[in-house]
Amino acid sequence: MDRESKLVERIGRAFRLGSRHAHDAALRLGIGDDAAVISCDGKNDWVLSCDAFLEGVHFLAKTHPADSVGYKSLVRATSDLAAMGATPRYSLLTLAIPASRTGVWLDEFLNGMARAARYLKIVLAGGDTTVSSVVSISITVVGEIARGQAVTRSGARPGDIIYVSGTLGRAQLGLELLLHRKIRASGLGGRRARHSDRALQSVLQPHLYPKIQLALGTWLAKRRMASAMMDISDGLSTDLARLCAASGVGATVFPELVPRVPIPAELSKLAGLKFDPLKMALHGGEDYGLLFTVSPRNVKDLRAAPGFSLLKAIGEVTRGKSVVLMDKDGAKQRLEPRGWDPFRR
Amino acid sequence: MDRESKLVERIGRAFRLGSRHAHDAALRLGIGDDAAVISCDGKNDWVLSCDAFLEGVHFLAKTHPADSVGYKSLVRATSDLAAMGATPRYSLLTLAIPASRTGVWLDEFLNGMARAARYLKIVLAGGDTTVSSVVSISITVVGEIARGQAVTRSGARPGDIIYVSGTLGRAQLGLELLLHRKIRASGLGGRRARHSDRALQSVLQPHLYPKIQLALGTWLAKRRMASAMMDISDGLSTDLARLCAASGVGATVFPELVPRVPIPAELSKLAGLKFDPLKMALHGGEDYGLLFTVSPRNVKDLRAAPGFSLLKAIGEVTRGKSVVLMDKDGAKQRLEPRGWDPFRR
Repeated sequence: MDRESKLVERIGRAFRLGSRHAHDAALRLGIGDDAAVISCDGKNDWVLSCDAFLEGVHFLAKTHPADSVGYKSLVRATSDLAAMGATPRYSLLTLAIPASRTGVWLDEFLNGMARAARYLKIVLAGGDTTVSSVVSISITVVGEIARGQAVTRSGARPGDIIYVSGTLGRAQLGLELLLHRKIRASGLGGRRARHSDRALQSVLQPHLYPKIQLALGTWLAKRRMASAMMDISDGLSTDLARLCAASGVGATVFPELVPRVPIPAELSKLAGLKFDPLKMALHGGEDYGLLFTVSPRNVKDLRAAPGFSLLKAIGEVTRGKSVVLMDKDGAKQRLEPRGWDPFRR
Repeated sequence: MDRESKLVERIGRAFRLGSRHAHDAALRLGIGDDAAVISCDGKNDWVLSCDAFLEGVHFLAKTHPADSVGYKSLVRATSDLAAMGATPRYSLLTLAIPASRTGVWLDEFLNGMARAARYLKIVLAGGDTTVSSVVSISITVVGEIARGQAVTRSGARPGDIIYVSGTLGRAQLGLELLLHRKIRASGLGGRRARHSDRALQSVLQPHLYPKIQLALGTWLAKRRMASAMMDISDGLSTDLARLCAASGVGATVFPELVPRVPIPAELSKLAGLKFDPLKMALHGGEDYGLLFTVSPRNVKDLRAAPGFSLLKAIGEVTRGKSVVLMDKDGAKQRLEPRGWDPFRR
């Protein structure tokens, strides 16, 4: 189990011990999944999640545009609602910033976040602001879903097919290129450089301005097509391990089926970098695709899903607890969780 | 208007501009009050608020026990629910901590927070954890209230009586003593010092382990006794200015009626400090008492309020926009908002 998951378990334990208020009739799903689920009225459940986005941890103030910080912080928080199949409704923003950033930086940050709010159709309902030495953002999102339809991480059964939506590793590629100085410097002048710059911008897009899978998530939840679901925020290897642990199952993944990012030859040459698309697809975080499992009897109905052409079956759920990669020759190796883990030392 | 309030206005504006999703039928109260209010079913509203608690801004890791940090962060967030008259139900915790604090510090922090959760009868429903260079906490709280009963800041009318609950300045006194080295050093030995230490502990209590006014808040809301209400978190002078601005009214406060903290002679002597109890009562933050206004015709019914003996009428709501202090001789001076403002330079 990764360190972050262990810490979440520890928090849950601290609150369960000796408290008759740790359980609550209306709380349908508590600590440990993508989001909490609470009964609202007889017809609907509310889905709540929060997400931290911190300077120096999740973004660099000198590298990432303020507009991207605002946009991405809200989108990534809302991805946890997509992961449950819920429809976004409200958000609350906790914003701590240095006084020096209350000018243009804040305007651009708010513009980016307001743009994300329009894209997600989510309403900013409140928040809290204060100063701090670095930018520290926490966003709470509230979504709505028909009663009992929220898709958790814990329903995967042996024999289910494992799907991912979208290409994996795009955000990681964008991050690596953004951090690579040669590339950044290359955008400064010349016809060739300008062309590269446009190509670069489109490669950076998934890292700076990610899209999430709301339509797919709600479609899968409404039809009860997914036995388990979560978003891929920390990397497939880490997130699949979490889904399997929550469901008490294992998994076999076929690496040649994992949809990986094509590396534009021009950029690769320009950067003088070697990229490993499979590694980026297995361990790269922040793609915010959906990872979900489907019972074999439901697979044919998936064709009607929004964005069906972007869905890829990458393996299947197994008995036991191991998550393995199996190549074309049938050779197996353990798929270690090597995605983003803030507490890895 | 204080800088934090200006910033909140700016955030609200950024999200209203050009967004058809800034307004929402179910959102009964949005940005700018103690909490947001959202229709749940026909009978109940949900009240949501979030609150940041940051190392180096709101507490000092070397001065404040981890247990107090955990306890106080949840209590102060929940005080915003008391301020609306809502009953606490759920909380979400965003916790960013240095890896070095994931041992004993975290255990003590969680113990403190779990103790607060039992006191408040609130359930931790979820959260997010990550690393950071300093401890950064954001807590979202969800409360419940009968439809339309939430008490906002904006209902005060000229002629209403202004009340506060509890003595003001206690938390400020605790903070000043805690930060004063002589006092801290005095607790280390000797019979006299041990006695002082016990006295000191009880004086520190309101700063380290504050109580909030849930029973009073719900009582006032249920009977529609308060025309406007908020909690005093940043200091009476700043918070009363906010309530008056939201209601479009002014206020006259009689300083001799403001309940101020008695300074234990022993501590004052020991510390060699001069305290000004009135200043601490007017501008000291973190007392988490309630500030509310009551129409004169309802005043007699207040006697039945929980903790009635701790309620003090300190002034009255006036036409206009000025908030003034009026002494016994009728001399007036403006009450400047000099409470806690994170963005003051």
